[in-house]
Amino acid sequence: MPQTARQIADDLRARIDSGEFGPGARLPGEPALVKQYGVAKMTAASALKLLVTEGVAYSRPGSGTYVRDFKPIRRVATQRLSRAQWSSGRSVWSADVSDRPMEVTAIEVHEMAAPRWVARALDLEDGQATLVRSRRYVVDGSPVQQATSYFAADLVRGTPIAQPDPGPGGVYARLADLGAPPVAFTEELRARMPSPEEAEALALLPATPVIEIYRTAMTAEGRPVEINHMLMDAGSYVMQYDFKS
Amino acid sequence: MPQTARQIADDLRARIDSGEFGPGARLPGEPALVKQYGVAKMTAASALKLLVTEGVAYSRPGSGTYVRDFKPIRRVATQRLSRAQWSSGRSVWSADVSDRPMEVTAIEVHEMAAPRWVARALDLEDGQATLVRSRRYVVDGSPVQQATSYFAADLVRGTPIAQPDPGPGGVYARLADLGAPPVAFTEELRARMPSPEEAEALALLPATPVIEIYRTAMTAEGRPVEINHMLMDAGSYVMQYDFKS
Repeated sequence: MPQTARQIADDLRARIDSGEFGPGARLPGEPALVKQYGVAKMTAASALKLLVTEGVAYSRPGSGTYVRDFKPIRRVATQRLSRAQWSSGRSVWSADVSDRPMEVTAIEVHEMAAPRWVARALDLEDGQATLVRSRRYVVDGSPVQQATSYFAADLVRGTPIAQPDPGPGGVYARLADLGAPPVAFTEELRARMPSPEEAEALALLPATPVIEIYRTAMTAEGRPVEINHMLMDAGSYVMQYDFKS
Repeated sequence: MPQTARQIADDLRARIDSGEFGPGARLPGEPALVKQYGVAKMTAASALKLLVTEGVAYSRPGSGTYVRDFKPIRRVATQRLSRAQWSSGRSVWSADVSDRPMEVTAIEVHEMAAPRWVARALDLEDGQATLVRSRRYVVDGSPVQQATSYFAADLVRGTPIAQPDPGPGGVYARLADLGAPPVAFTEELRARMPSPEEAEALALLPATPVIEIYRTAMTAEGRPVEINHMLMDAGSYVMQYDFKS
């Protein structure tokens, strides 16, 4: 019989894995655990807290502790590849954003002196002017991604890219209009715990990492024309990359 | 003057971001914080604990609290899987590290009935025999990745793929020998907190997420020939994906 908080947490985890408690299900509360496992209230509380700390469950104050639901947005970086043959029915994580519209909010555009890492990424001088476009992506009323793009100001100043709405096709279509269509991309991705500010900006549940991506967009000549810093709620995304050998 | 544990943690974080404490630096201990901020010992301890919980620092028992160092392995998915890479007799993982050699340990090969998700991914019947190859990748003595590959047993039984060492070029070269060279890949990636067992298997520092990838390898005809489940220490990896529009 599980007796320590760790053992009870592991037992609850096994019951979750077995399907006894499905995604979104309410876990037994402290009184129920006290009764089921014959332990002190504090041990029961610690067991539930462990599951929250480990990202298995989340607590709704005044309501209870619930099994975390993973209904991710599938972000397909490489849409161009013909996926019909190889993705049909083979996704490991079922994921669909098609029925959940994504809104773009909090669009802000301004110029600033290039921070060093931006200057290096865009082949600019330190402190040279860059145009910064930041925005937030929202699904079902929850923020899921914060993105900030940087462009050489000399390239995009006075163009629709400097407007909140850059028009049909977005900034890449406008870069093409400017004779600098991006055709090659590099994404560098890591995962880490968020800072308190990041956790607040993305309204993250406890024990939720962020996925951080830097994407560089380049022309056919290898000229970098945009660098995009993305910070995503790891609990809301599956990233998909398709490529050929 | 910062007074609460949260405020002191934020102040220390700002000092880390400013470079006052670089990667690997030892943060002031409890007595030093008590003196610097004029707070109780418990508040100082809580502030340091917050930084550990948030993945900014880690503690070495009996020694102190240190700024977490991020010296990742760059994993370039699109280069390491290119045909040139594996057909010239180099193993897939050799592209992962440049100056830090990566060891493959704990190689285990066995057959088992396909779990449902494997059967679906490999177009098999539920419970049909699969060959399972699991191994662990170690850098600087630390485990950084646990990987498990699944193949249809009918395809690879009795071949070098069923041996711990599948020979030059690895399993993909052997699949090519069998007339089923993988040429298209899908990687599905998420980040999440580890289970206690996963944290132990990868010797993770506290507050370290894992990156979980399922990679499906397909032939030119779209036949899935391998599914590889990878679990990586997010503190040890940067993932790079290069692609064209």
